[in-house]
Amino acid sequence: MSTQPMRYPPVHELSSEECWARLRTMVVGRLALAGKEHPELFPVNYVVDRGTVVFRSDPGTKIAASMDQARVAFEVDSFEPATNEAWSVVVKGSLEPVLQTADVIDAISLPLFPWQWGSKGFFVRIVPASLSGRRFVVADPGHWASQLMGIRRSSDE
Amino acid sequence: MSTQPMRYPPVHELSSEECWARLRTMVVGRLALAGKEHPELFPVNYVVDRGTVVFRSDPGTKIAASMDQARVAFEVDSFEPATNEAWSVVVKGSLEPVLQTADVIDAISLPLFPWQWGSKGFFVRIVPASLSGRRFVVADPGHWASQLMGIRRSSDE
Repeated sequence: MSTQPMRYPPVHELSSEECWARLRTMVVGRLALAGKEHPELFPVNYVVDRGTVVFRSDPGTKIAASMDQARVAFEVDSFEPATNEAWSVVVKGSLEPVLQTADVIDAISLPLFPWQWGSKGFFVRIVPASLSGRRFVVADPGHWASQLMGIRRSSDE
Repeated sequence: MSTQPMRYPPVHELSSEECWARLRTMVVGRLALAGKEHPELFPVNYVVDRGTVVFRSDPGTKIAASMDQARVAFEVDSFEPATNEAWSVVVKGSLEPVLQTADVIDAISLPLFPWQWGSKGFFVRIVPASLSGRRFVVADPGHWASQLMGIRRSSDE
């Protein structure tokens, strides 16, 4: 609709390296799965491990989906008050259960602290097919500063 | 897997009123749509308006999905340092474009500040089919406090 495209600061695409670096700075992301009527969408605690995203879960929708190697999307975002920049990273890929004993032992050693209490005895891995990210100056820093004041800065900024 | 269910603090389901109250405290949520290969997942700025969730968008995936009244999921979460409680709310429903002149005029008056610069000339509404929410004490407050220090508290706590 705009006839003056130059009045807006640009959206910067993040490189694959930048996407991974930013994924490593956060601990909660959101996992989207195809659902029967509507998509399923869950917040999950995660950790980056050797080019994949790993999280723990109890038996349920996410574990069942991992058995089917479901196609998923996983998103992480944040806001950096110091620069008024917002960013988001989206990983698209397949869920895979961590089943082999050696893999489970590896996974247990990951610094993965589930958000929610419970046994969370299963590990699930998102194996990426694509990775994309963007950062941009927020449109109304005053509004955003008041709304998002104090969200931690990512350590690589 | 646990044989000692009592060792974990409970997960509290949020009532519909509590879900709406918490949705009103935040400004960024994540929208999941069915996708061709993988689900689509976007961070969006939103506002609650008369029992729906409204956001602005430029022409693209989300607008096209709204024309098809796509089934979507929308999620908002936060962490309250004062109580070590995390919470999340998920709205499942259908996207609807805001097309009628009177509705567009109404929508323009909403306190909706897009995260990203651009014209964002279209309004889209999520009409809920279901609403669910939960809150729980985080499993490792020390870890979480360092990771999430300072995320704003919702005003209804």
